[in-house]
Amino acid sequence: MAKVSYDHYLHGGDYNPEQWLDHPEILKTDIEYFKKAHINTVSLGIFSWAVLEPEEGEYHFEWLEEIINNLYHEGISTILATPSGARPKWLADKYPEVLRVNEKREKQLFGGRHNHCYTSLIYREKIHKLDKALAERFGKHPGVMLWHISNEFGGECHCPLCQQKFREWLEKKYETIDNLNNRWCTTFWSHRYRSFAEIESPSTIGENELHALKLDWKRFVTEQTIDFMKVEIAAIREGGSELPVTTNFMYDYEGLDYKKFKNVVDVVSWDNYPGWHKKEEWETAVDCGLQHDLMRSIKKEPFLLMESCPSATNWKPINKLKKPGMLLATSLQAVAHGSDSVLYFQLRQSRGASEKFHGAVIDHYGGSDTRVFKEVTEVGEALEKIQETIGTKTIAQVAVLYDRENSWALKDAQGPRNENMYYQECVLKQYRALREQGLNVDVISMEHVLDGYKILAVPMAYLFCDGYEEKLRDYVKQGGTLVLSYWSGLVDATDRCFLFGTPYGLMDVTGIRSTEIDALYDWEENYAVPNPSNHLNLQKTYRCNHLCELLEVSDAEVLMCYGEDFYAGKAALTHKTYGNGHAYYVAADMEYAFYHDLYKRLVKEAEVKLLVKFVPEGISVNTRASDKLEYLFLQNFGRKSVAVPISEEYEVVYGEESEVIAPLKTRVLKKKIEVNEE
Amino acid sequence: MAKVSYDHYLHGGDYNPEQWLDHPEILKTDIEYFKKAHINTVSLGIFSWAVLEPEEGEYHFEWLEEIINNLYHEGISTILATPSGARPKWLADKYPEVLRVNEKREKQLFGGRHNHCYTSLIYREKIHKLDKALAERFGKHPGVMLWHISNEFGGECHCPLCQQKFREWLEKKYETIDNLNNRWCTTFWSHRYRSFAEIESPSTIGENELHALKLDWKRFVTEQTIDFMKVEIAAIREGGSELPVTTNFMYDYEGLDYKKFKNVVDVVSWDNYPGWHKKEEWETAVDCGLQHDLMRSIKKEPFLLMESCPSATNWKPINKLKKPGMLLATSLQAVAHGSDSVLYFQLRQSRGASEKFHGAVIDHYGGSDTRVFKEVTEVGEALEKIQETIGTKTIAQVAVLYDRENSWALKDAQGPRNENMYYQECVLKQYRALREQGLNVDVISMEHVLDGYKILAVPMAYLFCDGYEEKLRDYVKQGGTLVLSYWSGLVDATDRCFLFGTPYGLMDVTGIRSTEIDALYDWEENYAVPNPSNHLNLQKTYRCNHLCELLEVSDAEVLMCYGEDFYAGKAALTHKTYGNGHAYYVAADMEYAFYHDLYKRLVKEAEVKLLVKFVPEGISVNTRASDKLEYLFLQNFGRKSVAVPISEEYEVVYGEESEVIAPLKTRVLKKKIEVNEE
Amino acid sequence: MAKVSYDHYLHGGDYNPEQWLDHPEILKTDIEYFKKAHINTVSLGIFSWAVLEPEEGEYHFEWLEEIINNLYHEGISTILATPSGARPKWLADKYPEVLRVNEKREKQLFGGRHNHCYTSLIYREKIHKLDKALAERFGKHPGVMLWHISNEFGGECHCPLCQQKFREWLEKKYETIDNLNNRWCTTFWSHRYRSFAEIESPSTIGENELHALKLDWKRFVTEQTIDFMKVEIAAIREGGSELPVTTNFMYDYEGLDYKKFKNVVDVVSWDNYPGWHKKEEWETAVDCGLQHDLMRSIKKEPFLLMESCPSATNWKPINKLKKPGMLLATSLQAVAHGSDSVLYFQLRQSRGASEKFHGAVIDHYGGSDTRVFKEVTEVGEALEKIQETIGTKTIAQVAVLYDRENSWALKDAQGPRNENMYYQECVLKQYRALREQGLNVDVISMEHVLDGYKILAVPMAYLFCDGYEEKLRDYVKQGGTLVLSYWSGLVDATDRCFLFGTPYGLMDVTGIRSTEIDALYDWEENYAVPNPSNHLNLQKTYRCNHLCELLEVSDAEVLMCYGEDFYAGKAALTHKTYGNGHAYYVAADMEYAFYHDLYKRLVKEAEVKLLVKFVPEGISVNTRASDKLEYLFLQNFGRKSVAVPISEEYEVVYGEESEVIAPLKTRVLKKKIEVNEE
Repeated sequence: MAKVSYDHYLHGGDYNPEQWLDHPEILKTDIEYFKKAHINTVSLGIFSWAVLEPEEGEYHFEWLEEIINNLYHEGISTILATPSGARPKWLADKYPEVLRVNEKREKQLFGGRHNHCYTSLIYREKIHKLDKALAERFGKHPGVMLWHISNEFGGECHCPLCQQKFREWLEKKYETIDNLNNRWCTTFWSHRYRSFAEIESPSTIGENELHALKLDWKRFVTEQTIDFMKVEIAAIREGGSELPVTTNFMYDYEGLDYKKFKNVVDVVSWDNYPGWHKKEEWETAVDCGLQHDLMRSIKKEPFLLMESCPSATNWKPINKLKKPGMLLATSLQAVAHGSDSVLYFQLRQSRGASEKFHGAVIDHYGGSDTRVFKEVTEVGEALEKIQETIGTKTIAQVAVLYDRENSWALKDAQGPRNENMYYQECVLKQYRALREQGLNVDVISMEHVLDGYKILAVPMAYLFCDGYEEKLRDYVKQGGTLVLSYWSGLVDATDRCFLFGTPYGLMDVTGIRSTEIDALYDWEENYAVPNPSNHLNLQKTYRCNHLCELLEVSDAEVLMCYGEDFYAGKAALTHKTYGNGHAYYVAADMEYAFYHDLYKRLVKEAEVKLLVKFVPEGISVNTRASDKLEYLFLQNFGRKSVAVPISEEYEVVYGEESEVIAPLKTRVLKKKIEVNEE
Repeated sequence: MAKVSYDHYLHGGDYNPEQWLDHPEILKTDIEYFKKAHINTVSLGIFSWAVLEPEEGEYHFEWLEEIINNLYHEGISTILATPSGARPKWLADKYPEVLRVNEKREKQLFGGRHNHCYTSLIYREKIHKLDKALAERFGKHPGVMLWHISNEFGGECHCPLCQQKFREWLEKKYETIDNLNNRWCTTFWSHRYRSFAEIESPSTIGENELHALKLDWKRFVTEQTIDFMKVEIAAIREGGSELPVTTNFMYDYEGLDYKKFKNVVDVVSWDNYPGWHKKEEWETAVDCGLQHDLMRSIKKEPFLLMESCPSATNWKPINKLKKPGMLLATSLQAVAHGSDSVLYFQLRQSRGASEKFHGAVIDHYGGSDTRVFKEVTEVGEALEKIQETIGTKTIAQVAVLYDRENSWALKDAQGPRNENMYYQECVLKQYRALREQGLNVDVISMEHVLDGYKILAVPMAYLFCDGYEEKLRDYVKQGGTLVLSYWSGLVDATDRCFLFGTPYGLMDVTGIRSTEIDALYDWEENYAVPNPSNHLNLQKTYRCNHLCELLEVSDAEVLMCYGEDFYAGKAALTHKTYGNGHAYYVAADMEYAFYHDLYKRLVKEAEVKLLVKFVPEGISVNTRASDKLEYLFLQNFGRKSVAVPISEEYEVVYGEESEVIAPLKTRVLKKKIEVNEE
Repeated sequence: MAKVSYDHYLHGGDYNPEQWLDHPEILKTDIEYFKKAHINTVSLGIFSWAVLEPEEGEYHFEWLEEIINNLYHEGISTILATPSGARPKWLADKYPEVLRVNEKREKQLFGGRHNHCYTSLIYREKIHKLDKALAERFGKHPGVMLWHISNEFGGECHCPLCQQKFREWLEKKYETIDNLNNRWCTTFWSHRYRSFAEIESPSTIGENELHALKLDWKRFVTEQTIDFMKVEIAAIREGGSELPVTTNFMYDYEGLDYKKFKNVVDVVSWDNYPGWHKKEEWETAVDCGLQHDLMRSIKKEPFLLMESCPSATNWKPINKLKKPGMLLATSLQAVAHGSDSVLYFQLRQSRGASEKFHGAVIDHYGGSDTRVFKEVTEVGEALEKIQETIGTKTIAQVAVLYDRENSWALKDAQGPRNENMYYQECVLKQYRALREQGLNVDVISMEHVLDGYKILAVPMAYLFCDGYEEKLRDYVKQGGTLVLSYWSGLVDATDRCFLFGTPYGLMDVTGIRSTEIDALYDWEENYAVPNPSNHLNLQKTYRCNHLCELLEVSDAEVLMCYGEDFYAGKAALTHKTYGNGHAYYVAADMEYAFYHDLYKRLVKEAEVKLLVKFVPEGISVNTRASDKLEYLFLQNFGRKSVAVPISEEYEVVYGEESEVIAPLKTRVLKKKIEVNEE
């Protein structure tokens, strides 16, 4: 893997000079404005295929070279994209196979973007040739720093080429068709396959209820996307460039399993478009924080914020302006969670088509005297002030499981609630509860190593990939605190139900067995009532909704019981010490206050080291650390100014000297790391 | 018709041992558990085609024979299914014509179930061959008791073969194209056909507004489904089996006109999946009761409950657990309404695919120590205790019309309200009002004979099949009490409007003519106010909603008038004696209380014999009778224990001695039928 | 253009005798009833193609001739339709190209109506031949008065023939592909075209986000529809008929740009189906009024109400009866706004198919003793009483811009709010405010000449067609009062953003520049607070919602400021005198009361002449005028009787003598026009 590190924060973003080649005065102004706004990085070429190769095989790179040179001469680096995110019309017209077929088996026409078959050999060949030529020309250019492969990979294709690849992929995985039939439970409804050749991808006009097929199809889509990406990376390497590569991920994107990109990209990058001012700011901040941590946890390295909006987006139902100070706060939040950049989409607004009203550093008016331009400049200045924190890492003592394969399987399963299982909400409540203790939190998949975590939240782990129950057992045995919840350990990696009791493989670890699960209508609720002598001293009654599991307790402390319905008095929260650790089991979808109070106690029980003694409402706490220094980021996403007392050893890097933090303000502090610390 | 009667209640349900052939220990345990749960009947082979005929023409029946034998040796009978509900992949791949074409003319891919063309000769040939072979092998097996033809027939196909059959069907019906044009009113919008060959089935991308075409298409779908079913029955007979046949119907299914199966099945059976605990239990019970009575009324014979869920379903938006006692109550409700069985889907949960979380007698855990298993056992024991009631019949003195052809036409017509005409609701209110008098109620079609009914409710009979007005006239003339409602008698059997006044043919019987109909927005309401001297002594004012018909009264008593709008003071309820009977006309969509109070009076006026003097809230009353004995079923679907006093001549068959019935509890009593009784 | 004027109001409507040819007694009764109801005009032949030409080339016109003669002999004129609105089955079967292809490129089947390709040469040839024959036979018949071309033109076709025409149309418009690429901004997402041949119409399975393409496609659809209509008109002229032509337009129809028909039709006609009694009557009346004025303004001549419903419609979600008096009020409203007719759909109800329950003068019952028949008769009588007003014109001193091209572009743009921009609502509020001053209002497009308007409301003029900014500038310079609003002047005629500031070309006229626009969630609101010294003496605070624009004020009076959010204190309403006129700028989506109060002041400031001194709530005021006489129409759409004092010079033409007007009642008065008046 190429080593990725910078000596300053990247500030800048997507730039489309090819739309302005006939306006040289605008191109000139742009660079002046970039410097004025402390912009040091631009992303070029993302949708430039039609300009780079206007006719098949005719490459026109001069304009790009001139832009890169001009930027470089002004100290601005280039992230260079491969243009595979949208194809020229001639390519689609001449080689129709490059266009996708949707799940209803309808061939798509040319249009939009991201509408190409990842399997098509022609598409791969054409982009390989172009990428290689780009690498040859720009791969060693001193102004070019990083490859931005394609753009926001996503979607799927059901064309005959993809069907064939899917069959090959299945054959490699299952070896025999009997094995596949067995794992997929195809005897149900007479769906047994006699050969891999008989298999077709899921379709709403065909097979749409064989969950194992659908799960494997989703896995295949991820792997085929990666396979395509590797073709692009190979082209770059063949072109002689050794620069690192990335591709920009999206917010909680269901279409791909990003953890599988871990060893493909040199640095993780993603596009963050939170809907600030829809809910309370602190609420949006928790939601964004989880995504930042999810991205950071993929490689457990600093990541890049590749896109964000300097003003209002234009594609949401309601596109609100960011209030003054919001841009700075959201930008520094990314940094606090581990980003080494603040990049925008877009530097200059396009004049036409679907994104013409998307916020930009420079808008159609074109002046640098706008509110947005000034706030962008403020961000640039702030990033320079905290330059010493660049490249520092995030160490987390606690983690929450949030796995895409589990999400896929859980949502596709026809289960107790088909309207909404509230999976993300359950993950988010536990993440928030840990964050409100002032802790860094890793957001991990089932593939992550668990060493070093003092607390591990495992909410609704419906699917256990092979051996996951053993990983959890070992984790507890060796002293970890596991918080497992309802609807866990029901199916194996092919969505086949475990027999003989659930949570599979962990009934002895938790001391309970799940016997039934009750679904509640949205207007129903139940309660968890504390048992008087529970060892955590929980004293409140909490509401639970949506799902209530019924447990048979064989060997566990019952901390709380249900308060209503025919299962009143039955266990709602249990605990068992196992090996050197603790196994908690939460039986129902509890309200947030429960998790807040539970984790407050568990943090103490598990001896998690707190960064700040008391975290007031609305305050977000993060640390980043080098070998010798720990940087503390404090941000106020509440509506009131509050004091956040910290120990005297800290020194101010950025922000006010006072301990009082105003709304949307940030303080960055540092202290030396003592060698004797645990 | 084969004679269907049993000497004990069937208890058991769908069983898919083909999913467990590699787990002989499970197959063994299953039978032990069946006996423990008093299960005496299993349904086999419903989706087994791919296992029965894994390659074209290669039949593998050994496994099935072994299962049937094993069950038989333990005293358990088999309902044997023909496997046409789902086809093997090889059949679809080799003969694509067997797959359906939807109404948009899109060929469906292999997948799901129930996705085959009923017209395809190849499909018919393949299933005929297999069915015949099954009949030859198992048709005389002493353990096999009944044929379960296919599964939940439904859906439609628009392939060229079906188009051709539809044209032939139309030609047979209309003889000349002029006749069809005339009946269908095709001159509207220039849709005249020059020959039957020009006709195509309705389509949202083609003809979708010619109501007569759509109505005939629905009729054709029913007849073609029956035609397909007859091929399967013929195969069974050719295979030498004389066992009775059935097919399982569905809850209020709009896709087929079940009354047309009357002479095709030897016994009616259906699948009941009420959503208990969503509304008040008594409300769900009324709704289920109507469906049971609808099914029973098809043949006016005991029916079979072919499927029901022992626990929670998995396909509803919210799948709630049944609270303790609910399974027993819902099972005995079926019996009270005339079922000779309580059968479940499913005996053992499948491990994979879309129904893996559907409730089952034996779940993935696999023990017999579960709550569900114990409640199933209770049902088995209860059925044995009331064994003497098996095969007894239901005699109803009152009936409600609920006709599928009417429902089709009424809903398709672009009429006063296109959002919702509240047809089912209107039927249900009248059914409930009669049930709350403690009466058995027949739910009948326009084809039923009306002799013997003292009261007949005819709500919203928009379409009159040929001669229906005469049937109603005779009914009243001979002494019946008819309650006809608004939006009745508007169109003939081809959805062509009657001229010269409505309700067609009954203006003299009712003494009124409907002049206009007002549609109300959901937020609007009107009132029906009693006339001081009305002969029924109605004294309350009732709300009406949705639809208010305006009447011209020529020769009728006006019992109630509208209270608001420009038609305040005009008739809302009228009455006329005609011949020896009474004709009531309800002009508006009245609230439930109106029907409750009306039928309380009509029951007295019509001298209907009451089974129980006073029916407390929540209590459901049914009787079943043999030649000599009448069995009274009393069930409490309310939230409180209540006393239901009954005459001393009754003797307890099942349940507590006390007259007080606790929630969800059932009492069964019997008395001798006096020969002198009317 | 043929001259269109009548000496009496047309009263009657659509009639389909071809559905009753086998019921001669009904055809006879119909004419008797027409006379009884004062019906003097019928529209024939609208969907008669299959009867007129039952086999290709075989024309059967005798029945039509007989009907026309019979009507004529009884003094009833005929509006004769060309039957292209629906085609016979043989035409679709023999020439599939006549059927449409939808935007997903799916060929439609035969069915419904209005489902033919406007480009198809065969369709054009067949209808041309038939139309010409009709013109030859009936074009000089003394009973025929007007050609009704096709019916409710609408919809679009994406077949290869249409694709080809679209490309030719584009080539004619843009000349070179570079020009098109430049105007359409195709460099965005690599969508550059290399030739016109590469272009395809928009599609949800292809290009759906290139706004300029979509806008031009919509324009093409209008022009191709007109091109088709011209073929029909040509046929009529070739057949020797010089009678005027029209085609019936629809309520606020988005599919066509009706202003382009201005010089194609001799008289504008339209079909009005308001949903009376859903909202308050006055509210529905304002909404209808706008549509009448929109239609009248196309040619600035009297128009025809071609269809309206004598009773309840049958195609709305809820189809309410018209309360007594409503039919007369709605009919006279059309006249008050400039209609020279009151025509219904339909004279006699059809027996079958989708419109069988649509209200009619004669219903299925068939008598003339119905409430509806009597109210129709009343309308006929009223029209005779006001006969002297026929042909008089409407003069408006004020106008509101409501342009279809703007509406298309505004709604398609991905902008600040994608849920709803509330464009029509903004137009309607300003229209209503002007109407409630008792004024005639023109509702105009960007193509209209602005001379003579004292006030011009320009709400949300997102798109400026070429030179529109100059037209507005001149208008103000020469003394007009312009009320421009937020979201104006953003894009040119190809939806390409203007650079260097908006509202484009009018920043100096208004003295402001729009810098940002904030979108509000539906639950949010802001306020406009009056500045103490504002010259209009506005004193109230008004709510604003949905959209709040932020202004940089360079040279304008700030009359009101925002009350909340970070832009509290910034301008919400500005004013500048420019040349001899006034330019107002409304920055936010203000509540109705604001417009009411604003226009009350502007009417005074601009010295608009008021027709009535005080307009009570619910009263609608219109005038029509000949050279010498002015007719004042006063209608009460409120719930209470109110007095409307008028000057003594008026004389009553119709209605009560008293100044008090009861709900749903109309008064028509007249006075001489003084030559000295301005």
